[in-house]
Amino acid sequence: MRRSIATVSLSGTLEEKLRAAAAAGFDGVEVFENDLIASPMPPREVRGLAESLGLSIDLYQPFRDFEGVDDARLERNLQRAEAKFELMLELGVDTLLVCSNALESAIGDDARAAAQLHRLAETAAPFGVRIAYEALAWGRQVNDYAHSWRIVAEADHPLLGICLDSFHILSKGSDPAGIRDIPGEKIFFLQLADAPHMAMDVLQWSRHYRCFPGQGGFDLTAFTGHVLAAGYTGPLSLEVFNDVFRASDPQRTAADALRSLSVLEDALSREQDGAGETAAPTGARPTVALTRLPDPVEPTGYAFVEVAAEESSAERVRAALAALGFEHTRGHRSKPVQLWEHGTTRILLNSADPRLGHTWSGDAAATALGIAVTDPDGAVHRAERLLAPPLPRRRDPSESRLHAVAAPDGTAVFFCPAGTAEGDSWLGDFTAPAVQGHRQGSATPLTGIDHVGLFQPFDHFDEASLFYRSVLGLEPAESLQLAAPDGLVRSRALTRPDVALRIALNVSVLGRGPQADAAGGAQHIALGCSDIFAAAQAMNEGGVAPLRIPDNYYADLASRTDLSPATREHMREYGILYDRAGDGEFFHFYTPMLGGRLFFEVVQRRGGYDGYGAANTPFRMAAQRAEQAQ
Amino acid sequence: MRRSIATVSLSGTLEEKLRAAAAAGFDGVEVFENDLIASPMPPREVRGLAESLGLSIDLYQPFRDFEGVDDARLERNLQRAEAKFELMLELGVDTLLVCSNALESAIGDDARAAAQLHRLAETAAPFGVRIAYEALAWGRQVNDYAHSWRIVAEADHPLLGICLDSFHILSKGSDPAGIRDIPGEKIFFLQLADAPHMAMDVLQWSRHYRCFPGQGGFDLTAFTGHVLAAGYTGPLSLEVFNDVFRASDPQRTAADALRSLSVLEDALSREQDGAGETAAPTGARPTVALTRLPDPVEPTGYAFVEVAAEESSAERVRAALAALGFEHTRGHRSKPVQLWEHGTTRILLNSADPRLGHTWSGDAAATALGIAVTDPDGAVHRAERLLAPPLPRRRDPSESRLHAVAAPDGTAVFFCPAGTAEGDSWLGDFTAPAVQGHRQGSATPLTGIDHVGLFQPFDHFDEASLFYRSVLGLEPAESLQLAAPDGLVRSRALTRPDVALRIALNVSVLGRGPQADAAGGAQHIALGCSDIFAAAQAMNEGGVAPLRIPDNYYADLASRTDLSPATREHMREYGILYDRAGDGEFFHFYTPMLGGRLFFEVVQRRGGYDGYGAANTPFRMAAQRAEQAQ
Repeated sequence: MRRSIATVSLSGTLEEKLRAAAAAGFDGVEVFENDLIASPMPPREVRGLAESLGLSIDLYQPFRDFEGVDDARLERNLQRAEAKFELMLELGVDTLLVCSNALESAIGDDARAAAQLHRLAETAAPFGVRIAYEALAWGRQVNDYAHSWRIVAEADHPLLGICLDSFHILSKGSDPAGIRDIPGEKIFFLQLADAPHMAMDVLQWSRHYRCFPGQGGFDLTAFTGHVLAAGYTGPLSLEVFNDVFRASDPQRTAADALRSLSVLEDALSREQDGAGETAAPTGARPTVALTRLPDPVEPTGYAFVEVAAEESSAERVRAALAALGFEHTRGHRSKPVQLWEHGTTRILLNSADPRLGHTWSGDAAATALGIAVTDPDGAVHRAERLLAPPLPRRRDPSESRLHAVAAPDGTAVFFCPAGTAEGDSWLGDFTAPAVQGHRQGSATPLTGIDHVGLFQPFDHFDEASLFYRSVLGLEPAESLQLAAPDGLVRSRALTRPDVALRIALNVSVLGRGPQADAAGGAQHIALGCSDIFAAAQAMNEGGVAPLRIPDNYYADLASRTDLSPATREHMREYGILYDRAGDGEFFHFYTPMLGGRLFFEVVQRRGGYDGYGAANTPFRMAAQRAEQAQ
Repeated sequence: MRRSIATVSLSGTLEEKLRAAAAAGFDGVEVFENDLIASPMPPREVRGLAESLGLSIDLYQPFRDFEGVDDARLERNLQRAEAKFELMLELGVDTLLVCSNALESAIGDDARAAAQLHRLAETAAPFGVRIAYEALAWGRQVNDYAHSWRIVAEADHPLLGICLDSFHILSKGSDPAGIRDIPGEKIFFLQLADAPHMAMDVLQWSRHYRCFPGQGGFDLTAFTGHVLAAGYTGPLSLEVFNDVFRASDPQRTAADALRSLSVLEDALSREQDGAGETAAPTGARPTVALTRLPDPVEPTGYAFVEVAAEESSAERVRAALAALGFEHTRGHRSKPVQLWEHGTTRILLNSADPRLGHTWSGDAAATALGIAVTDPDGAVHRAERLLAPPLPRRRDPSESRLHAVAAPDGTAVFFCPAGTAEGDSWLGDFTAPAVQGHRQGSATPLTGIDHVGLFQPFDHFDEASLFYRSVLGLEPAESLQLAAPDGLVRSRALTRPDVALRIALNVSVLGRGPQADAAGGAQHIALGCSDIFAAAQAMNEGGVAPLRIPDNYYADLASRTDLSPATREHMREYGILYDRAGDGEFFHFYTPMLGGRLFFEVVQRRGGYDGYGAANTPFRMAAQRAEQAQ
């Protein structure tokens, strides 16, 4: 399908917005009126620039407060419209978005509104313009798509149709299935926006918090499926008002936007396959060509996590790994990379990452996630189609070919063949025996990598959600806000619980603070275990004391849980925190910070606990601040 | 009255919060439970620190979801409470905040809730603790203060009273006048918070957007007046959840908080005077001592605005002033400061401000506002009592004594004696005749300084509102959000329309962008006039071309206004913008940017127009960006 984006979704001047949309690969744009008014380019010049960039102008918007007015106002509104039709001729755009009247004075009389919109369509005819009437969620009289369609049907003019906007429909909880009953040729335009679920005034929600499909909480696949089932064949067009996107690099936002439509089309295409003929609506409907991506990735878990550390921190990382029961088993055949293993859990420790000291000032960081997938070649093809930058790796020709792409925060995501350990070709690159004096771990009840926590750059938090969702097939949860001593942190988990693949993305709510400087904030690798006390004891005995949790925490635990005094005392000794949800329980502790931004966590899940101990995060962050202040 | 602040209102560790509260001059604190849990200090140590700082601990909070539960849960909740009572003994605090049950499972049975709260008070008695029951705005069964009072009255226990929180009451639109009917001795605690009017879920509104009294949209003076009329004699305590305060310097936030209570007490004290005995409630009520500040300032308008400019920009400022009809009339007797006058409108041009090149990188800026007031000595005393830092000015002993204090963004605010120009002592310092070759203005229809627009540091926007409100007696309007090409800008006007004293404060919504770097964003001085076309023509003929507004703007004006083609063409030629509200009209144009961040605006108000042309601000900001890109 054709893909379009409203200029209001991007930052910059109109010219910058057009260039960014074209560079990302969009077919067209909606011109947002204020962007044109603010531009020094006359409309004909805008048209010429768009043409030279290969962009069509699919919509001019918005035209406000037209219908449901008294007769004198109608004449003035028609004059106002006529001036816009002339402008649209110059601009080379044939569809005008007319949104439902939001003024207090709007008259609630469908026949009047229909007659007035009919007049508007008549007036538009000589200009070759058609009218797409949209029900704003906050329209005074008309705020529901079904209502806007009844009026358009009553007006019955070939140049009058409706515009559907997913936000206006889904934010109100309207059932979009009724869209299937609207003739596709009367749906003149489709605007798509997702949004996080928020309990707030719909106008403010709409103007500040929209995001691209797949980044929020709405089901855009189902929504768009209804519109296609109705027979809509126009562009998929993104209209996203977002405070962060308005202030971010427009080229990058446009690429993110296009990715969201690729994912949406791919999902729609797969749904159509699945539905087959039986679910097709009766009557002949036009079919549209949907972008099909390589098959979704089937991850089977973490193959490894790579940590890069300068020598000053590497020793602390090694000590922590050994104390947690990891063993330094092998070295890379050609690079200063150590393989540390605990059963099939693997951590790579890289002391030569070329980005060290460049991308971030911290001297230890998780720089790569190795994801085991059933089809590494397919995975990288899908990721590249999703605009993930491929990461070239300098390697000698004998080394295994291992595909990696860059996540939005720069973390490398490697696709490793799933299967038995020794069959993994990448492991074959680790042939050097561990050097003399290598650290050997103890027997600890670790079970694998539970999750990885990554602090994100402020501008790319939504982008990262969509990246992991679309590239790795993870499902994002709703965001939480957690209080650090220096400000709030937003946290969002993405999970694939069936294969125990979990990532937690964190971002500073104000985009600043000790945890959100240019170096990026804290990162951690959480290891699952089957016995939190044994794991903690082993780490202690291995010479690494846990992050110290205040006694006050344990006094509070005593007041609100049934944990025995002995258990609590045991927990206090080892800095073990506790959370509970339903019948599930969660025990976890942390290593100290290892080099400014990296730490390990050890977690034990009991009884189906599926969270991350978020209630304890403020105490962990405060304890880390106290530790670093020492 | 005693003044207190909840630790959750400030950033940092518990220790940092206590020190900040004490440094600002608070008498006590509410300890927010999570702050204690996160602290490495045992409760006795916290008590000792507070005592050494001269702070009492007035409240421990919150204790959640206690009442309206089944019998088994009641027993567990009482155990939970008992642990907190023991903690409170160590902490040395005698009042526990119990907020109404917010769980889905809460039972709606007042008799049960009353009986359970009675049990709680009985349990608290041996510990010397009393219970302050608060209706959360989102309480499941109890969410209104009148309801919480009915339950407390029914429970009828001397150790059980209510806690009133202005946010929970005013956010729901409840009438606070009923508070007068509650016996004062049963109001155990009073929490104060203001908030901007927002249409959003009350829980989110409460947790992120509260602010200090006088910074938001609630009438805290009337609210607190009701509580005092009821006979409340406890502390005035601030409990403010605010995303920015949570991430800002706690010492500065605490000072701002204390200022808000001084202003509140002063206003209450004046209301009591005004009300006299007749408005006093029947029956003997305890009286409380309210802080009384020097009388509010009676400004009569702008005496001057001072611009500091490095030589590279000063010439452009001089050219603009001359073109606008100002005349360089005199020089300062001892400093390189020029006096430019147009009638009684005065601009000082300072080429020696010592802050130049230090505070900001821009090379021209409005550094001082001269405010004419009836009682300059009283004004500075009031400002200093409101914690405004006095600004010493190096001057030779013969110079006039001119008081200045620093606004939160560093702008100097001078209090000048109101009256005739030549009687102004500060003008007497300008004795040197203008040098040869001085610029002489032309006759332009300027009428005075209409307003000054100041970009604010992100952290101190609310502080600035309260500063200008309390120090100059300006009334803040609601904030607007305006789209610049690089992100949203929040704008808030503070006005004293009776004396035409207006200030517009602006801030980047994300705290960044070209207009919000360390140098501060754009500033402007808006001059009123009685004939916008004559003023524009004079400026053009004076050799200064206006900020160029795109032709597209005038095409849009043609579509939506009745302005004649000749008028529009005239406006286009001079870059004049237009706004309309009711019968009022607003015409305005801008000079180019004079040195990176400073520009002038000329405005004409017709028919009672009272705004600032905010609808045009996005186009102005886009035009400035285009100008600077050249």
